[in-house]
Amino acid sequence: MNRGRLEAFSDGVFAVAITLLALNLTLPGPHHGPLVDQIRDHWPAFVAYLISFFTIGIIWVNHHAVVDNIAVVDRSLLFLNLLLLLFVVLIPFATSTMADYLAVGGKYANVFDAEVSMALYAAVFEAMALSFAAIFGWTLHEGRTRHTIAAEARRVAWLRFGVGNIFYIVAIAVAFFSPLVSLGIIGLTAVYYMFERTPAVRATPDATRQ
Amino acid sequence: MNRGRLEAFSDGVFAVAITLLALNLTLPGPHHGPLVDQIRDHWPAFVAYLISFFTIGIIWVNHHAVVDNIAVVDRSLLFLNLLLLLFVVLIPFATSTMADYLAVGGKYANVFDAEVSMALYAAVFEAMALSFAAIFGWTLHEGRTRHTIAAEARRVAWLRFGVGNIFYIVAIAVAFFSPLVSLGIIGLTAVYYMFERTPAVRATPDATRQ
Amino acid sequence: MNRGRLEAFSDGVFAVAITLLALNLTLPGPHHGPLVDQIRDHWPAFVAYLISFFTIGIIWVNHHAVVDNIAVVDRSLLFLNLLLLLFVVLIPFATSTMADYLAVGGKYANVFDAEVSMALYAAVFEAMALSFAAIFGWTLHEGRTRHTIAAEARRVAWLRFGVGNIFYIVAIAVAFFSPLVSLGIIGLTAVYYMFERTPAVRATPDATRQ
Amino acid sequence: MNRGRLEAFSDGVFAVAITLLALNLTLPGPHHGPLVDQIRDHWPAFVAYLISFFTIGIIWVNHHAVVDNIAVVDRSLLFLNLLLLLFVVLIPFATSTMADYLAVGGKYANVFDAEVSMALYAAVFEAMALSFAAIFGWTLHEGRTRHTIAAEARRVAWLRFGVGNIFYIVAIAVAFFSPLVSLGIIGLTAVYYMFERTPAVRATPDATRQ
Repeated sequence: MNRGRLEAFSDGVFAVAITLLALNLTLPGPHHGPLVDQIRDHWPAFVAYLISFFTIGIIWVNHHAVVDNIAVVDRSLLFLNLLLLLFVVLIPFATSTMADYLAVGGKYANVFDAEVSMALYAAVFEAMALSFAAIFGWTLHEGRTRHTIAAEARRVAWLRFGVGNIFYIVAIAVAFFSPLVSLGIIGLTAVYYMFERTPAVRATPDATRQ
Repeated sequence: MNRGRLEAFSDGVFAVAITLLALNLTLPGPHHGPLVDQIRDHWPAFVAYLISFFTIGIIWVNHHAVVDNIAVVDRSLLFLNLLLLLFVVLIPFATSTMADYLAVGGKYANVFDAEVSMALYAAVFEAMALSFAAIFGWTLHEGRTRHTIAAEARRVAWLRFGVGNIFYIVAIAVAFFSPLVSLGIIGLTAVYYMFERTPAVRATPDATRQ
Repeated sequence: MNRGRLEAFSDGVFAVAITLLALNLTLPGPHHGPLVDQIRDHWPAFVAYLISFFTIGIIWVNHHAVVDNIAVVDRSLLFLNLLLLLFVVLIPFATSTMADYLAVGGKYANVFDAEVSMALYAAVFEAMALSFAAIFGWTLHEGRTRHTIAAEARRVAWLRFGVGNIFYIVAIAVAFFSPLVSLGIIGLTAVYYMFERTPAVRATPDATRQ
Repeated sequence: MNRGRLEAFSDGVFAVAITLLALNLTLPGPHHGPLVDQIRDHWPAFVAYLISFFTIGIIWVNHHAVVDNIAVVDRSLLFLNLLLLLFVVLIPFATSTMADYLAVGGKYANVFDAEVSMALYAAVFEAMALSFAAIFGWTLHEGRTRHTIAAEARRVAWLRFGVGNIFYIVAIAVAFFSPLVSLGIIGLTAVYYMFERTPAVRATPDATRQ
C-alpha cells in the first residue's frame, strides 16, 4: 500500500468524525421554552464542540507531518493507524455523552455521572494520544522514514507527546473531583498544541502536484 | 504539509457538511396528517436547504480558487482553515434550528424565537465569511502565493468579501424585525455570488493530472 | 479550478449520500414484536435501499465518464454540478419518506400519501437525470472537452439520457395510480443502466498515477 | 475510468461507513439510571463496534492490495465493487440491530430475536466476503492486472478467502444456537486477518506521489 491511500482514508475518517461532532448540537426545539434559554442551558455542548473540533484538527495536522515522512507502509502501521482512527471515531460519542451530563449537572440524581462522563471523555483523548505516540514510535525504526529523524527531533517529539499524555491522565483523575476543571485542562491542552511553533513546510512544485 | 492534503481534508468536510444538510429534511411521517400538508408546513426546511446548500457550494468554489494559489502552508494557515471549517460544520445545525422555528412561526408562544434562530443562522454565515476573508488576508503576505496577486485583483477581492460580510451583518440586524426578510437577504447573497463573473480556468494537461 | 478537485468533492458527496441511505434502515427494535416480522414489514425500506444505492452508483460511474473528458472547468459547470449534487443529496430523504409510507400502506388513513411519496421519489430521480443531461449538454460546446465527442456518440448519449428521463416521468405519473408499479419502473431503469454495454477504459500507466 | 477514482470513491464509502458505526454508540442518557450501569448494560454495542470497525478496516486494507494491481477498469468491476460497498454500508445497520437485541437478551419475550439479529450480522459479513472474492476472481482473467498473479499466490489468496467465508457461514449457523459463540467466531476471524503476515510494500518515490 502506498502512503497516498493511507492518507486519503485517514483524511476521510477525520473529516467525517469532525463533521459528526455537530450532530450533537441539537437543541430541544419549539415547545421547550425560549430558544435563548435552550442555548444557554446547552453551553457544555458548544464548549465541548469547540474543544473536540480543535483536538481532532490538531491530530489531523500532526498525523500528516508524521505520515508524510514514512517510506514503507507495512501491516503494523496500518493497524496502528486503524487503532488511532478507532479512538478518533469515538470522540463524537464521548463528546456528546459528556455534554449531556454536564448540562443536567447537579440537578440530576446520580451526581457521580458528570464525573464519569468527563473521565470517559478524557480517557478517549488519552487513548488517542497513546495510539499516536505508537505510530511515531513505529517510524523510529531504521529505514521506515524517508528522512532520518535526528536525535534532537526525537527528543522534542517525545516531549510533545509526553505533555499531551500527562495532561490527559491528569484530566482523567481530576474529572472525579471537578468535571469543569478537567474540561479546562483538556481545553488548555488543545490551546497548547495550537500555539506550539512548528517550522513552515514549503510546498515545492513537486509536492503541490498532489 | 503540502496543499494537496489541505484540500483533500477540506473537501471531505465540505462534502460531509453539505450532505448532512439533508438530514434536516425529515418529515413527521405517517400518522401525522396528509403528506402534502406536511411538506407544505415544512417549506422553511426546503428553502433553508437550498440556501445553505448553495452557500456551502460557493464557499467550496472560492476556497479552491484561493488555496490553489498558495505556495507555503504554515501552521497559521492550517488553523485559519480549521476556523473556517468550524463554521461550515455549524451550518447544518444553524439551518435545522432556524427551519424548525420558522415552521412553527407565530403559532408558537415565544414569538421572539424565530428572530433569534434567524439571527443565529446569519451569524454563522457572517463568521464563516470573516474566516474566509482572514484566509485571503493571510495569502497577501509576500511569498505565500505562487502567483503575486495584483493590486487591482486585491481590491476586487476585498470588495467581494465586503459585499458578503455587509449583507450578512444586515441580515443579523434585520432578523430581529423580520426573519423572512433576513432569509431573503441571505438567499440573495448566494444568488449574487453564483452569478458573479469569474474567468474560466483552463485545465492544462498538467493541472488535470490531479 | 482543475478537474481533480471537482471530482474529489463530487466523489465525497456521492460517497456520503450513498452511505447515508443505510441510516434509513433502522428497525423499531426490541419490544416491538418479533424481529423477523419487523424485517418483513419494512421490506420497502430494503428494496428502496437497493434501488437508490445502485442508482447513485450508476450516476457516479457516468459522472466520471463525462467529467474525465472535460478540458475547461468554468463557473457554469461548477453550478450545474452543484445542482446535480443537490438532487443526489435529496435521494436519502426521498427514499426514506417513500419507504415509510409504502410500509404503512393501506392500513393508514390518508391513502393518497403512498402515491405522493412515490411521485416525490421519482421526481427527485427525474431532477437528477435532467441535471446530468445539462452537464452533458454543457460539454458539447466547442473546446470544452479534451477529445471531441463524435456526432454518433452524441446521438447515443442523448438516447441514453432520453430513456432515463422518459422512464422517470412515466414513474411520476404511474405513482398516482400504483406506487408499486412506479417503484418497479424505477428499479428497471437502474437495471437497464447497469447492463448497458460500455467499452472498457484501459488504465494507462499515466492514468493510473492519479 | 481510471483506478484512482475507483479508489477515491471506495475510500470515501469505507471512511463514512466506519465512522457511522459510532452513531450506534448512543446511551439512553440522563434520567435513565447511573451512567456506569448504562455503559455496562450496553457492552454488546462496544464489542460490536470493535469487531465491525476492524472488519471494515481489514476489508479496506485488502481492497487496496487487490485494486492496486488492476490494469483495466471495466463496467463489471465497477458493479462488483458497488456490490461490495452495498454490504459494507449495511454493516452499521447490522451492527446496531445485533447490539440492541444482544443487550436486551433473555429479558425480552421473543427469545429468538437475538439469534436472528446475530445471523443477520454474520450474513452481511458473509455477503461482503463473497463480493470481495468475486472482485478477486475478476482480476484473474488474462490482462486485467498490471502484474500477473502467480499460481502459488492465487492458491494462497483463495485459501485466505476460504477461511473467511467458512468462518462466517459457521457463524450464521451457530447464531441460532448461541449468539455469543457466533459473535466470538466473527471476532476471531477479524483477529486472524489482522495477524496474518503480508509482505511490506515499499512506497517508491513514484508510488508516494499519489
